[in-house]
Amino acid sequence: MYVLYYSPGTASMAVHQTLLELGAPHELRKVDFDTNAQKSAEYLRLNPNGMVPTLVVDGAPHYECAALLLLLAERHPEAALAPAPGTPQRATFLQWVVHFANTLQPAYRQWFYPQDFAPTEHEKESKEFARRRIEAVWDRLDAHLAAHGPHILGEQLSIADLYATMLMRWSRNMPKPATAWPALAALAQRVKARPSWQRLYEIEGLTEWA
Amino acid sequence: MYVLYYSPGTASMAVHQTLLELGAPHELRKVDFDTNAQKSAEYLRLNPNGMVPTLVVDGAPHYECAALLLLLAERHPEAALAPAPGTPQRATFLQWVVHFANTLQPAYRQWFYPQDFAPTEHEKESKEFARRRIEAVWDRLDAHLAAHGPHILGEQLSIADLYATMLMRWSRNMPKPATAWPALAALAQRVKARPSWQRLYEIEGLTEWA
Ligand SMILES: N[C@@H](CCC(=O)N[C@@H](CS)C(=O)NCC(=O)O)C(=O)O
Ligand SMILES: N[C@@H](CCC(=O)N[C@@H](CS)C(=O)NCC(=O)O)C(=O)O
Repeated sequence: MYVLYYSPGTASMAVHQTLLELGAPHELRKVDFDTNAQKSAEYLRLNPNGMVPTLVVDGAPHYECAALLLLLAERHPEAALAPAPGTPQRATFLQWVVHFANTLQPAYRQWFYPQDFAPTEHEKESKEFARRRIEAVWDRLDAHLAAHGPHILGEQLSIADLYATMLMRWSRNMPKPATAWPALAALAQRVKARPSWQRLYEIEGLTEWA
Repeated sequence: MYVLYYSPGTASMAVHQTLLELGAPHELRKVDFDTNAQKSAEYLRLNPNGMVPTLVVDGAPHYECAALLLLLAERHPEAALAPAPGTPQRATFLQWVVHFANTLQPAYRQWFYPQDFAPTEHEKESKEFARRRIEAVWDRLDAHLAAHGPHILGEQLSIADLYATMLMRWSRNMPKPATAWPALAALAQRVKARPSWQRLYEIEGLTEWA
């Protein structure tokens, strides 16, 4: 039994969708961002970063979206949401998951939490730099998908696709949303067509980008 | 046979040290940052991000330091530089590797490549924000090591320690270097005492923080 601390539509979303894909028994605990519950003493004991997701695994809390996705995929190998260690696709798989974690997701932090990157009076310019780095990732991922798609690993769906789609969704109100890139739009379409995505929308109460 | 594209003391360093720890046959190709060789057309064909490291594995180039560390550890399980999937330490291991990749290393990009984060006239303030985020990670990692050390996984050395030590080294000229935190200094000491570290210094021609 897993316990997922989440907030609708945030970085917990890909972990939630993965749990649904796996059909893994789990309990959900909503962290109320309106009351800043992610910074409460109680929550900080679970996750000292004061962010979601936190996933309780075998009784112990763990964080970092990408780490949780890797962990869930390897704990449920029968779902084949990751190529097994030693298989030819493994290096490409790890590369993209880490690339999203290292390059794309932090650029989004600069876009959505500009106060952690620049003084208030410079936030607008700061966000432009984030936007440029985000779009550079879309350029490269679109080229990869055009050559090797439709999924990041070709025919095989993996957590890299669920992760990418969550991150694409975050661009929906940006000047150039990810879906402006054709191969990205096609990947998003595939992931959004999955029953796990629809179920996630119902449970989290999401409406935008449906 | 691996081929590592590297530049001394940079993000390729932990991959290089891991190859030495593993005793894995490899060839080194130095990428000359002085001539901006990492942005040459030839190198961009290997790594479209124009950065090091790039590791050629089974004939195909791959990037992202943390992904390469995870890959090397799992391709050489006999060296036990990572807990095997399914073992109790696995979640903690993945959490810290991804945390460094997601939170610490990108903050360093803001510190060392401020031009990608803010207009020139705001670079100084921008770097202060990076410094704060870097130090927050040291706070948390120091607390973790004080409670569960001496390595990130206790008695077991893993690639997470090699990665952390590379990242600590980058703070050596910062206002508050990582070694100002006692448990971090102790971890750095252990990793620096390893023959692989000394060999790496010789090969890469490093002298600082010896
Ligand atoms: N490195 C974390 C980042 C998670 C993150 O940025 N979460 C955001 C929501 S998308 C959050 O919890 N924000 C609340 C806050 O920062 O106060 C991960 O990948 O899990
Ligand atoms: N996400 C990359 C980042 C690597 C990186 O930042 N490399 C730096 C050296 S530490 C680099 O190649 N810089 C040259 C440049 O940006 O032009 C990774 O983790 O491998």
